[in-house]
Amino acid sequence: MRVLFEEIRFRTARKRELVDLTEEVRSIVGRWNVRDGILLVFAPHATASLVLNENEEGLVKDILELFERLIPEGAGYAHDRIDDNAHAHLRSSIAKPFVLIPVREGELVLGTWQRIFFIEHDGPRYERRVVVEYVGT
Amino acid sequence: MRVLFEEIRFRTARKRELVDLTEEVRSIVGRWNVRDGILLVFAPHATASLVLNENEEGLVKDILELFERLIPEGAGYAHDRIDDNAHAHLRSSIAKPFVLIPVREGELVLGTWQRIFFIEHDGPRYERRVVVEYVGT
Amino acid sequence: MRVLFEEIRFRTARKRELVDLTEEVRSIVGRWNVRDGILLVFAPHATASLVLNENEEGLVKDILELFERLIPEGAGYAHDRIDDNAHAHLRSSIAKPFVLIPVREGELVLGTWQRIFFIEHDGPRYERRVVVEYVGT
Repeated sequence: MRVLFEEIRFRTARKRELVDLTEEVRSIVGRWNVRDGILLVFAPHATASLVLNENEEGLVKDILELFERLIPEGAGYAHDRIDDNAHAHLRSSIAKPFVLIPVREGELVLGTWQRIFFIEHDGPRYERRVVVEYVGT
Repeated sequence: MRVLFEEIRFRTARKRELVDLTEEVRSIVGRWNVRDGILLVFAPHATASLVLNENEEGLVKDILELFERLIPEGAGYAHDRIDDNAHAHLRSSIAKPFVLIPVREGELVLGTWQRIFFIEHDGPRYERRVVVEYVGT
Repeated sequence: MRVLFEEIRFRTARKRELVDLTEEVRSIVGRWNVRDGILLVFAPHATASLVLNENEEGLVKDILELFERLIPEGAGYAHDRIDDNAHAHLRSSIAKPFVLIPVREGELVLGTWQRIFFIEHDGPRYERRVVVEYVGT
């Protein structure tokens, strides 16, 4: 049994944005030379989410606007009395900070249109981290 | 350590619907004759979700209506300029395409009212797939 | 390979509330004396959620109000004809009843502001259960 970790570190440039981590995650899994298992992609942050979906410019815009519409910034939140990012915490509570992906014969089992996105809800940030963890053979 | 896979393939009949996969998943796990581990039920699709909840006719209707109310179809999404299913991608981004379930002494650890649902957000589809993966003893 | 289980049982006092399980989960993992793996925290309930976020009094209030605003109680749901808790089932369908956390060198890999919350959507309840499961070395 193998349990493997790697951490991706990156900065975010905008207040809110989607960062496509698919190729970096795929390349980590490739270097590990694993067989069958599961992959946990986890953001140790309370103001970010991880999502699997299509990397299409219009859809990326739609996803950001959906969060803004459902959970608007500055809508009288109690947490904003001590900070200014309640909306970001709430977005991360609903769209959680992790995804799981099967790994089979060394390959991520992703659908044609599934990409691994980190969603920055409270940027820009000098350093964001994503833990990539594998459990399997 | 055992890592086991099986894929469920099925067609969906309606534009949006819930498909209860519980018995099929339970029967797969039964055939595997496993002991203790975790089960990942994963849809390799960007316009579907997996959810654990009660299979009651009224609630099934409520779940579909909730998605329609929170993320209505055709509400001016940018992605709809190149396709017509932005709402389905957005619903899958919020209600993710996987669930995890503990397996203990060969049995799924599910609450009395928890059933495993595949949610079709963009049907009907000739073929939908769900990967059932086990990691454990 | 080790697969370990422990169950946390507790009662909830209010109709809806957040219960911070972080210290109890951390103490379970500490007693297990494990190394590297993943932790599944799973509620076998159809009217509860598990969420990772900050334990700040204002934010806790904001999270409960967000659910009330997005999925109000008694808004004409079909399931309410046979029960009175459709809103709680719907909230659990969106904000799922599990979280995953990496465990590295025996420690939970959580961000500074990430706490493990059980969300009661349909209390008070005499007994709620959370399954804590570890798979790793």
